[in-house]
Amino acid sequence: MCRWLAYSGSPVLLDTVLYRPEHSLINQAIRSRMGVEPTNGDGFGIGWYSGNGDGTPAVFRDIGPAWSDRNLRELAAHVSSHLFFAHVRASTGSAIQQTNCHPFRHGRWLWMHNGAIGDFQRLQRDLCMAVDPALFPSIEGSTDSEVMFYLAVTFGLDQDVPAAVARMAGLVERLGKEHGVAEPLQMTVAVSDGERVWAFRYSSHGKSRSLFYSSRAETVRHLYPELDYLAEVSDDTRIVVSEPLGDLPGVWNELPEGSYAVIPSGPHTDYEPFVPEL
Amino acid sequence: MCRWLAYSGSPVLLDTVLYRPEHSLINQAIRSRMGVEPTNGDGFGIGWYSGNGDGTPAVFRDIGPAWSDRNLRELAAHVSSHLFFAHVRASTGSAIQQTNCHPFRHGRWLWMHNGAIGDFQRLQRDLCMAVDPALFPSIEGSTDSEVMFYLAVTFGLDQDVPAAVARMAGLVERLGKEHGVAEPLQMTVAVSDGERVWAFRYSSHGKSRSLFYSSRAETVRHLYPELDYLAEVSDDTRIVVSEPLGDLPGVWNELPEGSYAVIPSGPHTDYEPFVPEL
Amino acid sequence: MCRWLAYSGSPVLLDTVLYRPEHSLINQAIRSRMGVEPTNGDGFGIGWYSGNGDGTPAVFRDIGPAWSDRNLRELAAHVSSHLFFAHVRASTGSAIQQTNCHPFRHGRWLWMHNGAIGDFQRLQRDLCMAVDPALFPSIEGSTDSEVMFYLAVTFGLDQDVPAAVARMAGLVERLGKEHGVAEPLQMTVAVSDGERVWAFRYSSHGKSRSLFYSSRAETVRHLYPELDYLAEVSDDTRIVVSEPLGDLPGVWNELPEGSYAVIPSGPHTDYEPFVPEL
Amino acid sequence: MCRWLAYSGSPVLLDTVLYRPEHSLINQAIRSRMGVEPTNGDGFGIGWYSGNGDGTPAVFRDIGPAWSDRNLRELAAHVSSHLFFAHVRASTGSAIQQTNCHPFRHGRWLWMHNGAIGDFQRLQRDLCMAVDPALFPSIEGSTDSEVMFYLAVTFGLDQDVPAAVARMAGLVERLGKEHGVAEPLQMTVAVSDGERVWAFRYSSHGKSRSLFYSSRAETVRHLYPELDYLAEVSDDTRIVVSEPLGDLPGVWNELPEGSYAVIPSGPHTDYEPFVPEL
Repeated sequence: MCRWLAYSGSPVLLDTVLYRPEHSLINQAIRSRMGVEPTNGDGFGIGWYSGNGDGTPAVFRDIGPAWSDRNLRELAAHVSSHLFFAHVRASTGSAIQQTNCHPFRHGRWLWMHNGAIGDFQRLQRDLCMAVDPALFPSIEGSTDSEVMFYLAVTFGLDQDVPAAVARMAGLVERLGKEHGVAEPLQMTVAVSDGERVWAFRYSSHGKSRSLFYSSRAETVRHLYPELDYLAEVSDDTRIVVSEPLGDLPGVWNELPEGSYAVIPSGPHTDYEPFVPEL
Repeated sequence: MCRWLAYSGSPVLLDTVLYRPEHSLINQAIRSRMGVEPTNGDGFGIGWYSGNGDGTPAVFRDIGPAWSDRNLRELAAHVSSHLFFAHVRASTGSAIQQTNCHPFRHGRWLWMHNGAIGDFQRLQRDLCMAVDPALFPSIEGSTDSEVMFYLAVTFGLDQDVPAAVARMAGLVERLGKEHGVAEPLQMTVAVSDGERVWAFRYSSHGKSRSLFYSSRAETVRHLYPELDYLAEVSDDTRIVVSEPLGDLPGVWNELPEGSYAVIPSGPHTDYEPFVPEL
Repeated sequence: MCRWLAYSGSPVLLDTVLYRPEHSLINQAIRSRMGVEPTNGDGFGIGWYSGNGDGTPAVFRDIGPAWSDRNLRELAAHVSSHLFFAHVRASTGSAIQQTNCHPFRHGRWLWMHNGAIGDFQRLQRDLCMAVDPALFPSIEGSTDSEVMFYLAVTFGLDQDVPAAVARMAGLVERLGKEHGVAEPLQMTVAVSDGERVWAFRYSSHGKSRSLFYSSRAETVRHLYPELDYLAEVSDDTRIVVSEPLGDLPGVWNELPEGSYAVIPSGPHTDYEPFVPEL
Repeated sequence: MCRWLAYSGSPVLLDTVLYRPEHSLINQAIRSRMGVEPTNGDGFGIGWYSGNGDGTPAVFRDIGPAWSDRNLRELAAHVSSHLFFAHVRASTGSAIQQTNCHPFRHGRWLWMHNGAIGDFQRLQRDLCMAVDPALFPSIEGSTDSEVMFYLAVTFGLDQDVPAAVARMAGLVERLGKEHGVAEPLQMTVAVSDGERVWAFRYSSHGKSRSLFYSSRAETVRHLYPELDYLAEVSDDTRIVVSEPLGDLPGVWNELPEGSYAVIPSGPHTDYEPFVPEL
């Protein structure tokens, strides 16, 4: 059911993060260790903010497995960004098509998701109807993930991200309860406006897919002074990812169930509690 | 805005009809003569009834241009059918993906369309809401064509095809009028249950895309006794197609505006009037 | 490094063999048990003899993973054949493209391969030069598998299949030795002319990829009288496949190293020794 | 038989040149005015030099029509370059696959071609054999264009581009003559090392595909002072393209038969004669 990665910090070539690590996202596509499905070969996508004019990120999505896509490799080797998303997909039933690959984009917003809405086919119509009618035609695919995004936009993503996501989660759980769905919502979600990244981890039954965030760069530098490449990244450079990119102790921290993190983060706290709006 | 072909009659290899004629559907994909767009390279699809078990037709759709698709050529050279649909797509804006290629299938029904719902984005939500809620999750793509299909299913395609299509057309025109859309509906449509083919030609402003049906095989045999291959086809073998497959006089007849034809047809009449249900 | 299946016997719908078994070839694409790579998602292909006119088989190949390909599923549910090949690919480096998917076809011949020519890039030019110059332009892709095929055609596949394959293997090993390649050849290969299937298992170092053939239908019926579907298949119906399709004891037999089998087989022997021609 | 564009000069977003002009390369893909085929929908590719480390250009190629490719549009809107190639393909028979799309790349070199080697299948083996054996495995596709490239590399592209291309053309014509091919070579070719672009126009019978180069930016500014966007481009900014991107008189100049141009060019001359090496 997918694996994803969000990066925010000093501009880097995408492949530094996407391809080079020992257990890179590309490797997680072939053989994930913590995912529900070991293989995530039903498409992929990247979104990146390039600093061009109007703040709209670029999105590159395709339907083949990420591990064999030459164009992705080329792009990653030649494109730099200070903030980017990457996602590899394992379909939970919906069609294999570009419009069902993450990240989804709306204006300056990017969104990606790992998880599922339980019994989505039963809730789909009501959820689509709860999307702002003006946004309904923007739903291009058939995934639960995309509908969740447009619900969050409808509920005020532009004004308050955690509140909008909490309202969306609350609606999904309410509707699920009405329809007798045992576990309406499973989600790790990342959303960004090009300046910050919000990462959420929540599930109705408290057993969300895995999600980790990196320690602050200064912390990692102290632990591993021999890692030269870290010498140049800003202190607030952070990665949030479904599975740790490597095995060095102290580098990766699990985002707890029912919480969300914001990057760049404040000095005192890495995450806050997340509760769906009742 | 697409070209299509429907065949009903003696079983033939698909390529006899799809590839060999002088102005075959494949050629109409590269260079149509009567279409709004000369090139229809945004995907293609075929559906065929194979006589297997439960009457469900097979569907083969892909997103590349039909003229260069090797798999289509292979299939056509090895698959025979007594009733099949073929469609080449020119997108009117929606994504290039298999789920947006025609024909669409639901149970034993196939459906394909050339034309458009005017200002579809404005009407899309209301039209989707008019689809039977139980069918809503069956809408896999983002075309107006597919929504028209599920509306027709909702309105009783199983019981009375022309009535169901008339109700669907009536709804589209009513909604269009409410929203101030000048020309809500343009359509040539083919629909089949594996036994008969219904072909419709109607537009709000009376200027539909081109549509032709072949004369009865016996008629063509009289006109052109030298066409040996016709010696073996049944008398009720008919083809309905966006543009004539060749230039022999007397073989192709235009289906008039505001009418529909049924194949196999009765002995006295080739078509009936079609009026949207008010 | 790929998994494949060859079927010969009573005509069946392809999906009976491709999709329904517990450890079907489609499942072997997602998660093989005995393959070098657990995942074979770099394309797939099927070839089938349909009894049409000139004996040329149909070939359907595509570059996505087999497990998510809708068109493959459709075809398999509607196409029957008495003799067909199916292959799922794990690339050993060459590009992901239809012309690198198996089976390869030349005239009435089909060919598929699991394994590799060691250090192929070093031997490629000499091997291509050994192909009959008239056949050189027929090499459409960049795999070692395809070159092995055209070498076998060059060496008299039309006259004597085992001899032609032995000559091809002998050339590969000779060239490999000249170039100091430690293990020039690893192969399980299937080849057919539409009437018989030859399956080879040989490697320079005696450690070939896995390959199994099914017991005679009568044998399986005796062992498992409850398997109704076997009541109707001919006694000489056989399957050769990289990994057993299920776990019933007595149904699957390993084809030994350095041997080849022919289906339908004679009454006394299932396989013969195979030795590259020196 | 393809259309292409090469840009060299001030860094620009690719879409400024690829999408915005009235008769852009993307429009030439749908409906070329001067091409042999009006439609060039058999794949596309771009190559761009990004100023990253080792001078190797990035290449992005895909098999669908350029006009509907979302990823191409995204890239073009977010990637800038001072030197880039773009090509839209109409296949002359070889397979539709990424490895048959232009531009081709070898080290820091990019190459693209419009035209054909006459009766290529007859000459293909000899031409491939003339490629440096060490380069033979680099030939990934099955086009004449790619073989021409590797012949030019073999003949010293690194040292002297026009001489290497002249040697390649000479070999093709000599071989063609030996095999009785009436018109062995038709070419417009662009090649670059990231610093300069060489554009060639030559055919055995003197009837090459169309090719144009833009006047110097200062010239265009004098002619059309109202074109603000030109105010900022360097004086040596030039475009070479199969068909003019627009209709303003004085902007586009035909590259004569049997000549080649270098960009940036010297002050006195735009092009030099080109003659295959006998």
